[in-house]
Amino acid sequence: MSPKPLPGFRDFYPDALAERAHIFDSWRRVVRRYAFQEYDGPPLEPLELYTQKSGDEIVGQLYNFTDKGDRAVALRPEMTPTFARMVAAKAQALRKPVRWFSIPQLFRYERTQKGRLREHYQLNVDLVGETDVLADAELLSVAIDIMRELGLTSQDVRARVSDRRLLNGLLAHHAIPEAAWPAVYAVLDKLERQPREVSADALAAAGLDGATQETVLGFGALDLAALQARYGTSASAGEAVARFAAYVAHLEALGVGAWVKVDLTIVRGLAYYTGIVFELFDNVGEFRAICGGGRYDNLLGALGGVDLPALGFGMGDVVLGELLRARGLMPAATPSVGVWIAQAPDTPDAPQALLQTATALRASGATVEYALRPQKLDKQLEAGRKAGAGAFVIVDPAHTDSPWRLRRTGHDDQSFTTLPSLVAAVTAARESDR
Amino acid sequence: MSPKPLPGFRDFYPDALAERAHIFDSWRRVVRRYAFQEYDGPPLEPLELYTQKSGDEIVGQLYNFTDKGDRAVALRPEMTPTFARMVAAKAQALRKPVRWFSIPQLFRYERTQKGRLREHYQLNVDLVGETDVLADAELLSVAIDIMRELGLTSQDVRARVSDRRLLNGLLAHHAIPEAAWPAVYAVLDKLERQPREVSADALAAAGLDGATQETVLGFGALDLAALQARYGTSASAGEAVARFAAYVAHLEALGVGAWVKVDLTIVRGLAYYTGIVFELFDNVGEFRAICGGGRYDNLLGALGGVDLPALGFGMGDVVLGELLRARGLMPAATPSVGVWIAQAPDTPDAPQALLQTATALRASGATVEYALRPQKLDKQLEAGRKAGAGAFVIVDPAHTDSPWRLRRTGHDDQSFTTLPSLVAAVTAARESDR
Repeated sequence: MSPKPLPGFRDFYPDALAERAHIFDSWRRVVRRYAFQEYDGPPLEPLELYTQKSGDEIVGQLYNFTDKGDRAVALRPEMTPTFARMVAAKAQALRKPVRWFSIPQLFRYERTQKGRLREHYQLNVDLVGETDVLADAELLSVAIDIMRELGLTSQDVRARVSDRRLLNGLLAHHAIPEAAWPAVYAVLDKLERQPREVSADALAAAGLDGATQETVLGFGALDLAALQARYGTSASAGEAVARFAAYVAHLEALGVGAWVKVDLTIVRGLAYYTGIVFELFDNVGEFRAICGGGRYDNLLGALGGVDLPALGFGMGDVVLGELLRARGLMPAATPSVGVWIAQAPDTPDAPQALLQTATALRASGATVEYALRPQKLDKQLEAGRKAGAGAFVIVDPAHTDSPWRLRRTGHDDQSFTTLPSLVAAVTAARESDR
Repeated sequence: MSPKPLPGFRDFYPDALAERAHIFDSWRRVVRRYAFQEYDGPPLEPLELYTQKSGDEIVGQLYNFTDKGDRAVALRPEMTPTFARMVAAKAQALRKPVRWFSIPQLFRYERTQKGRLREHYQLNVDLVGETDVLADAELLSVAIDIMRELGLTSQDVRARVSDRRLLNGLLAHHAIPEAAWPAVYAVLDKLERQPREVSADALAAAGLDGATQETVLGFGALDLAALQARYGTSASAGEAVARFAAYVAHLEALGVGAWVKVDLTIVRGLAYYTGIVFELFDNVGEFRAICGGGRYDNLLGALGGVDLPALGFGMGDVVLGELLRARGLMPAATPSVGVWIAQAPDTPDAPQALLQTATALRASGATVEYALRPQKLDKQLEAGRKAGAGAFVIVDPAHTDSPWRLRRTGHDDQSFTTLPSLVAAVTAARESDR
């Protein structure tokens, strides 16, 4: 007996593959409208590619090993290091901004979370070479437009946006010393999920007085109007507030304003992001984040040695798939066959006419199946019904005045004297069924 | 600096990815017309999945390692064991024939062939549950139809077909003892590539007399007519000749007869194939095989414990890509952007009109880009030209009687007073350019 798949890995039977393809196709359709180009890299990379970005502690979560040439290698846990290498290697030659996307399968060996998947697919969309918030707005618009393409609305999904530089400005405005910022960020990151006292204690431990603690604990409730009112003229934060306001205005102009919620508790990787950050969540709070991203202006310099501003997001297939199924937005699998061809009389020894008909219909773009063994006509038609065929063609070479009959549910039978006339009718039926 | 990709692994920059996508899209288009459904499995599998099929000697060619849960695992070197597991696990529930395809990336650590790739993509098309040669003909027709879809002709590519059972019948007819068959197969496999004397010596060593050696050395020149004339009434081979003749007749009826050449030197894996086998080659003999496959009626029983007849083929992306490029059939990359939008007057501080225009055009399906920073109009248009845009929209909100202008190479400028009228014009232009 064959061993089962490894724990955390998925077999995609055709129905599951069709769901995956629905997501991938939607991703590609939308990002291409934004003029992003697809790229890909190897799923196996030198281990160093990941440790140079994330340090040696990441190794514990990787599928890593030594290959037969004594190289330390790892299955890719994320796409950004590969992306950074590829951009850096051709940084001079590439047209700016670089607008690239990819749909890599990513791998993590997570010991602690049993039952969680150890592989998933992730859309990566990245934009290199622009510092203006126009680029940030364009990027988030892509992510939201994907939600729309999949049938979700702003009632289903919200994009929570924050800005690293704005938050830094607020902390400076309130005279919180830089040494305390990491602690403040850690508290903000957990603000929704931990009791208020725990957060307050952590801020106190970082040296914040009671009034400043209250101010920080209130950051989660600040919307754009409040930010403008309180910090619009601040020497430390005013410029960042204006930039953030422009960002939100651009999102309005791009038609995605209803999806966007200012939320300064969105933190994301401190070592990584340098400006606007965002995450997409379902409004019910039922699932983990659908998507996350932001601006990482220093990373390409650190990883690839080219000093280029950059921003991007990742969107996985797993949470998105769960959300679509929960909202009834995952389309049912369509039958694999459009036209079933049967040959009369029963049990044909020489199915030449049937095969010629199949070839003519396939050449016209139809999806065609027929019985691959001699069978009685009834059996052939029964097999076609089981396959879910929407149309049946019955070929009877002996019936020379109309050798082809077309049968479709809910339509009268049609007869044809020539193969081209049959093909034209099947093509017309396919177009009208669309 | 980032480490380079591992030797034998490919970075796919957008131009290379577009070539890969051209091949993948063509594969999918054709196999779907034949009503095959896509599936996929994990790229990492238990090592045992491969050793149970191919023995322990395959381990030397694998990317295998022990994972953090002490499991012996390997990157998949082929898809068939995964396919066999998946079919076996649902053998009862699946509609027969099972018509499935997949496009896995496969991995082999080949020490001996430096410079060769260690990964490639391979279309796998398999059909389970049919013993009739109609199924064999259907399968080869898929492979040939892919060649046609890619612009190749029967002048470029030939499908060489043989039949294990037919060849066994011939060997029996000539009273060659079964113990000598493996040696005879090995000679036939190399017949084209090694000197005739070497082949004759090998046959002599296997115990064949001079006359029988001559007969075997002549097998490569036998076409269907010769097979029918010499072995049509043979007690050992007659039935197999008739079956093979039906196969060739079915291929003729399917419209691919011109591509097919009977060639008994096509052997393929002895332990694996049980009936008709085939390989596709370029006619010049410039490249390795494009595709290979055949009937493997015993494998699902051996691997998956379900006794079902099966047949299938694999077609890689590497040789096929080389052939398409050599024949000038790899389409040039299309520009990533269709419509470039620029805003006048120069240096707009509030590009609301531009962003609204972009959103409206994208919603209509257009591929849209614009400058992601405030720039003078000339600079914006220059950037669009560099991006390869086929159409330019200039937005001038101040020009209230016609805020939108559409510019296309070789066409007169058009002006529009409403956004819907602009969108309609851009859509019409896109359709007419198709």
